[in-house]
Amino acid sequence: MVHQVPVTDPADPRLADYTRLRDVNLRKSLEAEHGLFIAEGEKVIRRAIGTGHPVRSLLMARRWLAPLADVLDGVDAPVYVADDDVVEAVAGFPVHRGALASLVRLPLPPVKDVVSTARRVLAPEVPGDHGDVESAAHHTSPPRRILILEDLVDHANVGSIYRCAAALGVDAIILSPRCADPLYRRAVKVSMGAVFALPYARMTNWHDDLGIIRDAGFKLLALTPDQSAVPMDGVEMTDRVALMLGSEGDGLSSHWLDEADERVRIPMSPTALANGVDSLNVVAAAAIACYSLMRS
Amino acid sequence: MVHQVPVTDPADPRLADYTRLRDVNLRKSLEAEHGLFIAEGEKVIRRAIGTGHPVRSLLMARRWLAPLADVLDGVDAPVYVADDDVVEAVAGFPVHRGALASLVRLPLPPVKDVVSTARRVLAPEVPGDHGDVESAAHHTSPPRRILILEDLVDHANVGSIYRCAAALGVDAIILSPRCADPLYRRAVKVSMGAVFALPYARMTNWHDDLGIIRDAGFKLLALTPDQSAVPMDGVEMTDRVALMLGSEGDGLSSHWLDEADERVRIPMSPTALANGVDSLNVVAAAAIACYSLMRS
Repeated sequence: MVHQVPVTDPADPRLADYTRLRDVNLRKSLEAEHGLFIAEGEKVIRRAIGTGHPVRSLLMARRWLAPLADVLDGVDAPVYVADDDVVEAVAGFPVHRGALASLVRLPLPPVKDVVSTARRVLAPEVPGDHGDVESAAHHTSPPRRILILEDLVDHANVGSIYRCAAALGVDAIILSPRCADPLYRRAVKVSMGAVFALPYARMTNWHDDLGIIRDAGFKLLALTPDQSAVPMDGVEMTDRVALMLGSEGDGLSSHWLDEADERVRIPMSPTALANGVDSLNVVAAAAIACYSLMRS
Repeated sequence: MVHQVPVTDPADPRLADYTRLRDVNLRKSLEAEHGLFIAEGEKVIRRAIGTGHPVRSLLMARRWLAPLADVLDGVDAPVYVADDDVVEAVAGFPVHRGALASLVRLPLPPVKDVVSTARRVLAPEVPGDHGDVESAAHHTSPPRRILILEDLVDHANVGSIYRCAAALGVDAIILSPRCADPLYRRAVKVSMGAVFALPYARMTNWHDDLGIIRDAGFKLLALTPDQSAVPMDGVEMTDRVALMLGSEGDGLSSHWLDEADERVRIPMSPTALANGVDSLNVVAAAAIACYSLMRS
């Protein structure tokens, strides 16, 4: 039974969760204070609800009620229905995909739990949707391949890296204390919902937490553009490998590089180096690194 | 001798090249009509001028005169010097890197020339800047690995793919008739100037031009998320390989897929497929594909 509530006033206090979605600073404090995050678009909303995030409310144009009917049926929260211009006035930009959901953030597990038993989130039970391979998700095994992200600032990059990591078989992600939030709307959207599919944790103290990861048996690799490092495909891969990726501009800090068991690089073309093209962006580097990790 | 011209009025007609840089439609017609493109930021301006693009003018805050002094010395065009708020009023957004250049678009070679003799652009002669490997760039040899982009719409994606392709040793890029412009400001910026380092051409008729590429001895691979395609690392690589990449949403069109000699895929994790994470974004896919091509 869908609990539809028509709304016409952008200043309606019941829509406060959806205020100014592109104002990063406002959103940070609002989402932290209320423990919420926003999912945008049918596919992402479906994934967010399907992976067990309690719904605070939804906000959408009438045309989205039908495509989301099966999901909304199980939701015990108000579905605010408004015209596009009302949604735009609240959100502060034209929400092309027209449907928004406000969901409850679940508590993140500590780093030590994620590195000892990363558990796969199950696919939502959607008839006909990959039913043939669904059984592959029914396992709980310790992670073998993880990524550690140091201080990435761009939400789209974080979202893209989650999508790559999930698609290519990385088991979990560990975030540095200051790394950008994967549940920020844009990260969630760019990840296509992969932020719900991968177990992850946030470090409280990077040095101690790297120690915990090492003590769990992980070899710590640091990805660097430094051409004196070992090429990715020349690294001796152990049973458990954690790959550290640095921020967009400067890469890993020297403190983190010093903690690595080995520094690795993606080999560049000599002609590119001659032309001054000497690095990849962090998403491209992460994609290649994940691909390489998966094949080892 | 730098030809400095102080400007204070955002409506000054001499600044028309820099009008509303984020207005894609306006820029398309303005840049086509005048045969110009915009480079933003010190590094990219340096590359654009160093690769032989004639300068129409530059526009920058005074603080950028010193870092760019060596480049400006050889420029026979006006350097408009303005306060940040004037630059912002013209460009329509805060230009954080503060320096802009308007440059002349060089005529693109026909597809048949690029696939027969892709010529490396030389690095600008900057003392101490990769001088030790510069000799690697001094060669002219027929291309062995090329990318063909069908109808990408996002300029940042096009720029990122140029950066990957250049860094990983792809020899040239061929664009479909409707593929987004690599010389659009944001593409140039995201590519970090790699759009100047790679030879490229734009198709006039995609079907005939794919024929020209095939006749030049290239095996045409189509990258697809279709899991029934051959895994990238299981493909028999010939001396000359052209990899076709499709647009962000739908991938390659069926017409293009039908022209391929072989359909290839990047293997996904079974767990990811079970969770509905069944594809990579186009930049991540391109990065892995280029990495894979380079190693073959």
